Amino acid sequence: MFEIAARDGAARTGLLYTPHGVVHTPAFVPLASTATVKSLQAGEVAELGYEMVLGNTFHLFIQPGPDLIRELGGLHEFMGWNGAIITDSGGYQVFSMGHGSVAEEIKRRRDPRTSRVVAIEEEGVRFRSYLDGSERFMGPETSMEVQAALGTDIALAFDECTPFHVERAYTERSMERTHRWLDRCVSWHREHAPAGRLLYGIVQGGVYEDLRDRSTSYVAQSGVDGIAIGGSLGQSKEQMREVVGWSLAGLPEAPPRHLLGIGDVDDLIHAVAAGIDTFDCATPTRLARHGTALVHDPARRWRLDLGKAAHRRSEEPIDPDCPCPACREHTRAYLHYLVRAGELTGKRLITLHNLTFMERLMRGMRQSIEAGTLAEFGDRVLAA
Amino acid sequence: MFEIAARDGAARTGLLYTPHGVVHTPAFVPLASTATVKSLQAGEVAELGYEMVLGNTFHLFIQPGPDLIRELGGLHEFMGWNGAIITDSGGYQVFSMGHGSVAEEIKRRRDPRTSRVVAIEEEGVRFRSYLDGSERFMGPETSMEVQAALGTDIALAFDECTPFHVERAYTERSMERTHRWLDRCVSWHREHAPAGRLLYGIVQGGVYEDLRDRSTSYVAQSGVDGIAIGGSLGQSKEQMREVVGWSLAGLPEAPPRHLLGIGDVDDLIHAVAAGIDTFDCATPTRLARHGTALVHDPARRWRLDLGKAAHRRSEEPIDPDCPCPACREHTRAYLHYLVRAGELTGKRLITLHNLTFMERLMRGMRQSIEAGTLAEFGDRVLAA
Repeated sequence: MFEIAARDGAARTGLLYTPHGVVHTPAFVPLASTATVKSLQAGEVAELGYEMVLGNTFHLFIQPGPDLIRELGGLHEFMGWNGAIITDSGGYQVFSMGHGSVAEEIKRRRDPRTSRVVAIEEEGVRFRSYLDGSERFMGPETSMEVQAALGTDIALAFDECTPFHVERAYTERSMERTHRWLDRCVSWHREHAPAGRLLYGIVQGGVYEDLRDRSTSYVAQSGVDGIAIGGSLGQSKEQMREVVGWSLAGLPEAPPRHLLGIGDVDDLIHAVAAGIDTFDCATPTRLARHGTALVHDPARRWRLDLGKAAHRRSEEPIDPDCPCPACREHTRAYLHYLVRAGELTGKRLITLHNLTFMERLMRGMRQSIEAGTLAEFGDRVLAA
Repeated sequence: MFEIAARDGAARTGLLYTPHGVVHTPAFVPLASTATVKSLQAGEVAELGYEMVLGNTFHLFIQPGPDLIRELGGLHEFMGWNGAIITDSGGYQVFSMGHGSVAEEIKRRRDPRTSRVVAIEEEGVRFRSYLDGSERFMGPETSMEVQAALGTDIALAFDECTPFHVERAYTERSMERTHRWLDRCVSWHREHAPAGRLLYGIVQGGVYEDLRDRSTSYVAQSGVDGIAIGGSLGQSKEQMREVVGWSLAGLPEAPPRHLLGIGDVDDLIHAVAAGIDTFDCATPTRLARHGTALVHDPARRWRLDLGKAAHRRSEEPIDPDCPCPACREHTRAYLHYLVRAGELTGKRLITLHNLTFMERLMRGMRQSIEAGTLAEFGDRVLAA
């Protein structure tokens, strides 16, 4: 179900086989959290070269609900997406409510649609829906059931994502509970999942090397098909790379590895070099909706804020070498205007651009690994 | 510059020649008020079959400003649209501020971006910008200058659009001022406009037959290239048809005729039968952004509110015979969900559908006029 095709140091290209086709890795996975990559049709995402999107178990649990999506043929059918789908477990969103401003810290922003945690128990989490205030419950089995109702190709085990500055004792207790929840997810999966559906376990353990070691071993031996690295990855890029390194150190080669919630250009390059296969992240599409385009400019963290007055008169495209419709057909001046005026067309055009940028970056990495030149490729991107 | 190709009763098909290509009439003209047909790229609008869009002189005057658009090559270049552009004069928006809730009455809704009228004078109108509160001025020459800066193909003369329940005396005084403003626009146009740019005058006169007669004669004899029918068209569809009838009665055959701000299916059918050539209206695209699709259902005013719970489980497309991406690729259930969740993808898909619907309706009318069967076509649509 995962076939490593080429290696370059710790990096590898691979073929990830799912019930909805193969995913060529390393791959970036765009967010279709709410059953849509915002502003795009599913078919357009496929045209950009993507083979997998990420659906959000928590949001779809709340609206429109797993029963409706199952009744309508599953998430693929519902949103018109024929490629692979990975669904997060809902744990991150459920716990974000509880951690509140700490979750904000991890993601640098709080999801406006937060609900309220009522209780975190061994069984799972009780919380109030952000839609209607009703009390809801999610635990490992619920999460697996919801993901099954969605008809996901890759399910993620239910976990608690601990923020980086909770104390070590809490991080440890939480990790141990996440491991017990993993076992329950594995049991559920063995009993109920159709052939071909994959289950990924999630490595937690915060910023503590020994906890990461223990979590890595636990997840690797749990019988899952793939391994996701989650939780707090630290408060700086350096710490994040260290934590990812610890998490990877104890992992067997064979299972595919997903890094949750990471999507900055430099982070992707380092993580691919370290042996990560897939990534999901809200940043490229969220930045787009706020007017920021991704560009080859490491000095500015690969970000071009089109809302800035400097672009008001620019007749240049975002990037003359980019094949996306925003770059082929429009000037920075027009995009600047659309961003300032809050126009939907601007959000959409920059989304198309940013996803084109990400897919070209990942393709560049795949080709470089095949050619054994990932280090040079990385240096070139990081020094562009 | 306007060539009548076929006739069927008072209806006609025609070829409207502009500096940016020919427009086959009768035609519906989508609104690109703010230099974008909201959620679409210009190229997509062309792919839907449209040959002309309408730009809004007032909004573009305020943001990003005519000087910038001229500097960037004009509105066509700015927004990437290669077809024809007609621009309204700005009069409607400028006066909407003054008339306030009365404007609301005409359009059933008030533009949230209203500014404040400071003074209406013979020279023109002073008002405060909704962006920064600065005092601005627009009169006939300003309007023509702005439209010239935009590089429009068809300019509309500056007018006051009187709402239907201002008293007759005001309607008459306003109409007479609009006529004087028309003369100033014609003078400006003769002196400054490049070859090929067309100027349309606007018939006013409210709901008073004798005023409409006078206005029609005045505009027809003013030397304009085409005639737009504007102003209050009454408080009911019956009154609107009566007023349009009066306005058309005194018109020569040759000039093209535009009906401002009308876009309901039944109104288009009646107006085409009465001899109107082009239409603009915010309704099809605005309804789309609020979740309402246009469908062949006269009993429901051709409207299908996809936000309604009835569509929650519907696996049908909006219309099985429609070739748009919303209908080819998605169910009503998915669109219902997108509308409820406020997703951009939903606004865009329904916009694509509604503009596909409008273009197919107009094409049907063009073909029926050529075949001499417009009455049957109209009966079929009105009784569908």
